[in-house]
Amino acid sequence: MTEPLVYLNGRMVAASEAHLPIFDSGIVMGATVTEMTRTFRKKLFRLDEHLDRLFRSLHYARLDVGLSKAELTGLCAELVARNSALGNGADELGLVIFVTAGEYPTYAVIAGRPARIGPTVCVHTFPLPFELWAKKMQMGAHLVTPSIRQVPAQCYDPQMKCRSRMHYYLADKEAQLVDPEGSALLLDLAGNVTETATANFLIVEGGGIVTPPSASILPGISWAVVRELAGELGIPFAERDFQVFNAVNAEEAFVTSTPYCIMPVTKINGIAIGDGKPGPMFHRVIAAWGQKVEIDIVRQILDGGRRRQAP
Amino acid sequence: MTEPLVYLNGRMVAASEAHLPIFDSGIVMGATVTEMTRTFRKKLFRLDEHLDRLFRSLHYARLDVGLSKAELTGLCAELVARNSALGNGADELGLVIFVTAGEYPTYAVIAGRPARIGPTVCVHTFPLPFELWAKKMQMGAHLVTPSIRQVPAQCYDPQMKCRSRMHYYLADKEAQLVDPEGSALLLDLAGNVTETATANFLIVEGGGIVTPPSASILPGISWAVVRELAGELGIPFAERDFQVFNAVNAEEAFVTSTPYCIMPVTKINGIAIGDGKPGPMFHRVIAAWGQKVEIDIVRQILDGGRRRQAP
Amino acid sequence: MTEPLVYLNGRMVAASEAHLPIFDSGIVMGATVTEMTRTFRKKLFRLDEHLDRLFRSLHYARLDVGLSKAELTGLCAELVARNSALGNGADELGLVIFVTAGEYPTYAVIAGRPARIGPTVCVHTFPLPFELWAKKMQMGAHLVTPSIRQVPAQCYDPQMKCRSRMHYYLADKEAQLVDPEGSALLLDLAGNVTETATANFLIVEGGGIVTPPSASILPGISWAVVRELAGELGIPFAERDFQVFNAVNAEEAFVTSTPYCIMPVTKINGIAIGDGKPGPMFHRVIAAWGQKVEIDIVRQILDGGRRRQAP
Amino acid sequence: MTEPLVYLNGRMVAASEAHLPIFDSGIVMGATVTEMTRTFRKKLFRLDEHLDRLFRSLHYARLDVGLSKAELTGLCAELVARNSALGNGADELGLVIFVTAGEYPTYAVIAGRPARIGPTVCVHTFPLPFELWAKKMQMGAHLVTPSIRQVPAQCYDPQMKCRSRMHYYLADKEAQLVDPEGSALLLDLAGNVTETATANFLIVEGGGIVTPPSASILPGISWAVVRELAGELGIPFAERDFQVFNAVNAEEAFVTSTPYCIMPVTKINGIAIGDGKPGPMFHRVIAAWGQKVEIDIVRQILDGGRRRQAP
Amino acid sequence: MTEPLVYLNGRMVAASEAHLPIFDSGIVMGATVTEMTRTFRKKLFRLDEHLDRLFRSLHYARLDVGLSKAELTGLCAELVARNSALGNGADELGLVIFVTAGEYPTYAVIAGRPARIGPTVCVHTFPLPFELWAKKMQMGAHLVTPSIRQVPAQCYDPQMKCRSRMHYYLADKEAQLVDPEGSALLLDLAGNVTETATANFLIVEGGGIVTPPSASILPGISWAVVRELAGELGIPFAERDFQVFNAVNAEEAFVTSTPYCIMPVTKINGIAIGDGKPGPMFHRVIAAWGQKVEIDIVRQILDGGRRRQAP
Amino acid sequence: MTEPLVYLNGRMVAASEAHLPIFDSGIVMGATVTEMTRTFRKKLFRLDEHLDRLFRSLHYARLDVGLSKAELTGLCAELVARNSALGNGADELGLVIFVTAGEYPTYAVIAGRPARIGPTVCVHTFPLPFELWAKKMQMGAHLVTPSIRQVPAQCYDPQMKCRSRMHYYLADKEAQLVDPEGSALLLDLAGNVTETATANFLIVEGGGIVTPPSASILPGISWAVVRELAGELGIPFAERDFQVFNAVNAEEAFVTSTPYCIMPVTKINGIAIGDGKPGPMFHRVIAAWGQKVEIDIVRQILDGGRRRQAP
Repeated sequence: MTEPLVYLNGRMVAASEAHLPIFDSGIVMGATVTEMTRTFRKKLFRLDEHLDRLFRSLHYARLDVGLSKAELTGLCAELVARNSALGNGADELGLVIFVTAGEYPTYAVIAGRPARIGPTVCVHTFPLPFELWAKKMQMGAHLVTPSIRQVPAQCYDPQMKCRSRMHYYLADKEAQLVDPEGSALLLDLAGNVTETATANFLIVEGGGIVTPPSASILPGISWAVVRELAGELGIPFAERDFQVFNAVNAEEAFVTSTPYCIMPVTKINGIAIGDGKPGPMFHRVIAAWGQKVEIDIVRQILDGGRRRQAP
Repeated sequence: MTEPLVYLNGRMVAASEAHLPIFDSGIVMGATVTEMTRTFRKKLFRLDEHLDRLFRSLHYARLDVGLSKAELTGLCAELVARNSALGNGADELGLVIFVTAGEYPTYAVIAGRPARIGPTVCVHTFPLPFELWAKKMQMGAHLVTPSIRQVPAQCYDPQMKCRSRMHYYLADKEAQLVDPEGSALLLDLAGNVTETATANFLIVEGGGIVTPPSASILPGISWAVVRELAGELGIPFAERDFQVFNAVNAEEAFVTSTPYCIMPVTKINGIAIGDGKPGPMFHRVIAAWGQKVEIDIVRQILDGGRRRQAP
Repeated sequence: MTEPLVYLNGRMVAASEAHLPIFDSGIVMGATVTEMTRTFRKKLFRLDEHLDRLFRSLHYARLDVGLSKAELTGLCAELVARNSALGNGADELGLVIFVTAGEYPTYAVIAGRPARIGPTVCVHTFPLPFELWAKKMQMGAHLVTPSIRQVPAQCYDPQMKCRSRMHYYLADKEAQLVDPEGSALLLDLAGNVTETATANFLIVEGGGIVTPPSASILPGISWAVVRELAGELGIPFAERDFQVFNAVNAEEAFVTSTPYCIMPVTKINGIAIGDGKPGPMFHRVIAAWGQKVEIDIVRQILDGGRRRQAP
Repeated sequence: MTEPLVYLNGRMVAASEAHLPIFDSGIVMGATVTEMTRTFRKKLFRLDEHLDRLFRSLHYARLDVGLSKAELTGLCAELVARNSALGNGADELGLVIFVTAGEYPTYAVIAGRPARIGPTVCVHTFPLPFELWAKKMQMGAHLVTPSIRQVPAQCYDPQMKCRSRMHYYLADKEAQLVDPEGSALLLDLAGNVTETATANFLIVEGGGIVTPPSASILPGISWAVVRELAGELGIPFAERDFQVFNAVNAEEAFVTSTPYCIMPVTKINGIAIGDGKPGPMFHRVIAAWGQKVEIDIVRQILDGGRRRQAP
Repeated sequence: MTEPLVYLNGRMVAASEAHLPIFDSGIVMGATVTEMTRTFRKKLFRLDEHLDRLFRSLHYARLDVGLSKAELTGLCAELVARNSALGNGADELGLVIFVTAGEYPTYAVIAGRPARIGPTVCVHTFPLPFELWAKKMQMGAHLVTPSIRQVPAQCYDPQMKCRSRMHYYLADKEAQLVDPEGSALLLDLAGNVTETATANFLIVEGGGIVTPPSASILPGISWAVVRELAGELGIPFAERDFQVFNAVNAEEAFVTSTPYCIMPVTKINGIAIGDGKPGPMFHRVIAAWGQKVEIDIVRQILDGGRRRQAP
Repeated sequence: MTEPLVYLNGRMVAASEAHLPIFDSGIVMGATVTEMTRTFRKKLFRLDEHLDRLFRSLHYARLDVGLSKAELTGLCAELVARNSALGNGADELGLVIFVTAGEYPTYAVIAGRPARIGPTVCVHTFPLPFELWAKKMQMGAHLVTPSIRQVPAQCYDPQMKCRSRMHYYLADKEAQLVDPEGSALLLDLAGNVTETATANFLIVEGGGIVTPPSASILPGISWAVVRELAGELGIPFAERDFQVFNAVNAEEAFVTSTPYCIMPVTKINGIAIGDGKPGPMFHRVIAAWGQKVEIDIVRQILDGGRRRQAP
């Protein structure tokens, strides 16, 4: 049997058996904190930092995962080891952790049993869908600023990686009116550029990389890797609020996200960025990243994408 | 067997079998639209209006439930008929409908099958937990304005009943620092009073009822019933923005919500409202409501609450 | 000779001679107040109200047109009389008045003459371009909410009809990414629906017409006609802030503007309004309007549009 | 003949012939992007940077000037050469470039010809009006914070130099109620200091120069020169939001703008800055600037101003 | 002896002995709630409503005055009776009540005694200074919108009459830069017109009176009298947000305040309102008010003002 | 006699005689600017910086204290010398300066004398109440973010130390609903962390100290000492906006204020900071501070607190 395993509330279950009752708070309220990392050559990338961020999200949301960091680390390693070994074509795995506020007692009674006490904890893997990114890694992504705005920190903080993501859902739908393969680049209530639903957004200006302030976005682990690589490569890296004007006039732009590391952005609201093609900074940073993880990241995505789409 | 049934994606299943795979968008993104009504004497209350509101939420969120209003009406009636007949002590039933954006393809692959196409649709019932409200119906609820603010409509509109509710979760946690049985009364970004996580908030001023504007809250069906009753009873009913100052200086305050209809609020931020007891307007409105549904609503809650807590 | 006349700074000139020096404040600063009306059967519609609004705009902007209302009225009548008589195919005329802050002295010196003192005043007509509206009058317009927001009143008040309209220009460009024939429906900074670059926006809800508050939009003369017609037809007409949620869930929506009176809106952000076709309220209001001006407004547009596009 | 030339849509015309038809978008909508530089000793100052900024403004506004940077550079040089040679008393020239969205087709028909396709492009010079600045260079300018606020970037970005400037017009009118020779210092919607209608605003605090963030103002070329000079002189130069409190308590304040470089500000809202006189930092920076361009800038303004006002 | 009495913390003291220790919270924190009314023909006007408002302010601020409404009523009557009898030239008295949060314990220790427990309560009278208003009642007041904004309700609610009034102090200083006899008309953070430091602001539009919403201003007792008189006179009275545009274009404008009832406003930001003179609505309302209190209010002010300024 | 002296309007008076008439603007309007410092070993700490800040506050508020800095310095020294010598158990003194806008003429008339001209100036001392802080210095303080927000700078600037502090009063009342010994940590209107009513708030993140931007808080002298000590100790010190998320996830948090220097914060909204105990950074900074002033600051507070609470 080749089905991957899922950790769910203390047990390892087969993926097809991994489900939540309809009265879980994750479903009832979107009261869910989450984290995601991936493997490079079957090894989890910066799990430690991802777990630190998970614990920060949990602390802010007053959720107690009921597991130590060491225990979570062990669980993740075990899942990757077992699911990588399945040999079902996955070049690399993504790994997802999520923690909900647990079963919602008022509804739980219908199951004829008392509500389970404590948060719901789940860890699962998935094969990285390289085929989704192959074209964009070569041609660049198209971002669109929708009329929907980023949820402000005084409602719930974007620094917490959570799953109450209706604004992202709506924003992407708006963006896709412009380009079915486009994604939303959300502005905050003051009109500053923030991030996309799943990635941080960076621009290149005057030869340096500029990011929205770390306090008004989800400070991505990949984002931090870019900052780290910039330091190593002697590229200036600055945090400051900027607007659509700066984005469309940037020398380059890219998004960073765990599964594909960094991806060039070549069009915003239909306006070409730079010369409309992935630029030298993108190539320089992703090459440096690849050296760190001993993989040609772009090639892996292209190869993986090609393989998946073949019959 | 006394287990209630649940409608889930075209099938009736036993409640204990009603679950969503961990890769459902309802879990992954909180991209879920929902609706709730209840029975009075085993008959669903204003299902028609609830379904209309559901369709408005779906339309805004670009979700297609794949069922006509008539079909949904039939489903709900069937569920109530069957689950009411179980005779397991439920005086009255709550009925919940929710629709998610469906399975998230990137993760769904782990189950070894293609992602199901289309939204996830679920309808279920639950026995109304009268025991939760019995004391508050007599003594009044305590609301607290937290530092967390209501999500503004330009992020996602509070008029859509959705389940990306992290702000409500956080707000209630803050309120419960003040009073473990308290609930959050959220202010909007301009400091106007809006609503609680689960109810509309109304005040009595100058002998009339005042509500925040219908466009900045979830316009509740119960809220509309109060407006309707006010019309019938000759009580002025006005919509306008107001602030904490007005709330603490109101003659009375109450919250309206499907399961308990209306509930008196006798304390806000520790400050007594009026004389600190449920007031005449509350009694007048709930009596009129009771006449409409041929039930003494307060007594039903008190009796139900007593029965549940008895051994 | 069939060229229409233009009033410019005290003189009647041929249209092809009507121009402003490059150092006029209208060009240098967009410091221009404007007004537009149209003829029905060659008679100017509600010129009196348009001139009142012009004088309010001028008063707010501290500009002195240097002409009495009676003088302006006379000028407009004369222009219409003379330009209508040209017989060059115009069914009806639009009439535009604009007043700029006059010549900008620092630049004016280059013309080798002293700067003209006082505002620049211009009145001109143009044949109504029915061909632009014919299709939309039948099928409905498509509006799109862009990321660009309406300029707030504390910068310059939208109640003043002025020509610093860069935000409208940018907003329409964004909207046309979604639909090349679409127009922008701007939100204000709080996410409330306001208006389009050239028209007021109204929705039908519960059988009544709802408009954004008159103080946060340019209170159109056509908008006021709709309010007046609603009064005559017994249709409720309410002013209140509303959001995209209400717009997409409206029974009908339409825009009002001087040249085409009212036009149905059948799609917003790609979402169909009502059944996606011009609705009964639109037909009822435009019919009543037509009776007032003794013209079948829709037919005139369709006929005019057809004639213009014919060879 | 001593009349200067103006470049207009591909032709060189005499200044008195340089005009736009009343249906140009620059007049109809204020949809105009602009740029200005000046000569020092008859040579254009930092034209390259000004053209770069022009292209950024055009890119943001989706306008295509239809000329390469090299072509524009050539045009500017030619204009300065020819207009400087006229010998009509101009010590130095200002040079203005503006690009509008072109002719507005609906109105253009009145001229009896099809609308010209593409943007309107104009380049012209003007003699620098030293007489306007002579007194302020010695005594300092008086700025006043009006009730009118800066247009926020989510309406149209202040980083784009455009001519929809009604807010500046209104703001200056308010400021001049306080002091007929005063200018408005606009605050943004959050109450931060931004800029004046025509200049950047800088303060001296703790011996260093502080500017509002470059992303919330029009980042002036003169402003950049000050930053560059500060670097050369070892003066700290910081970007950060500040408020009226900081401005009135600054050691010095000044404005920077192309035509006069930098000008001392000695009064804000009637409150003296420092000792109420131009301070040492002003003198130090303008001296350094003068060295760069081999001119005593203050003296040139004083001399020029004196000469102009003489009979 | 002709010195008036003052009620202070349970005792009647001579006015020259009425003082607070420097460690009273009223001085240390501005934590003071206040109320003011006046006499007409030596009788207190609407004391009952003023006391109701005082108790609302106290309730919001969690201050307990320690006196019943009846006791306060008695105190006020006694003060007026005794101080009116002094015969020292006062035509009419103003009466002020204020309640502070009491002595600040940390500082109180310096007086060598324990801090007094409970709030500080003071009631005093003062002769109405008719001379301050005489000219404005005839010529109209001049209001100026300053850059300073009204404190928003989420900081402390303008509906509470309190003495943390630094913003009013600063705003009036700004207004007086424009006109030494002018007063500030504050805008809220969204640019809506609110009120002056000491009065409500009303405009006449379309023959009716319009006020900013009662929830965003201090809802004055005089303001309520105008609403009441409007009702009696058949004048429409509407509450809604409006902006400077509406104020400068109003048919008339006036301010209402306890000591002078209503006063015409004939200039805003230097722009004439209507024909620049007190208008018919002002005369109509103040005449009706005068009938209610059996005094010619304008004449009393003019006479009183003349008498005071005479030697 | 052991009563301390107070400077009041040019005279030294006994503390029990130091009071303001009820018509002082400090009482009537809260129009008061203030400053506070303390002694270490009977010597005033950084009086010079405190006076500089006082003059900045006065300058912004357009108040003229009527005394030179040297005169004020002398007055303060004299007061400390005389009051320290009283030997009444004060280990150390706090010193307060406040300046009000002077007597309010309209009310002053009741005292039967003309209003005093010019501001009211008062300087007084008080024994530092160590007993209030002893427990918190050991266990840490508990801060709570209330629903009340910080007054924005466009109303009156938090950089001015003034006594219109109603928002602080209300905010602390809200915080004390959560914990009777808690204090409010106010957010600004955008949800950024600002300060408490009496102290600056700092967090430790990544081993460095982070403060909200100096322009959006009262830039404390103690705050500046921490910055200075951080520089000396090689600890990074950064200014940037941060949110509750960062505060609850900080390694440590503390408040700084003149009387107790720095105090650890171990709980925010009931959430433990770090391990819930005063951390190493706190100990390191307060030790360094102690060295500077040659006192063991914590011990002095503990000893002083113990002595005061003893019988």
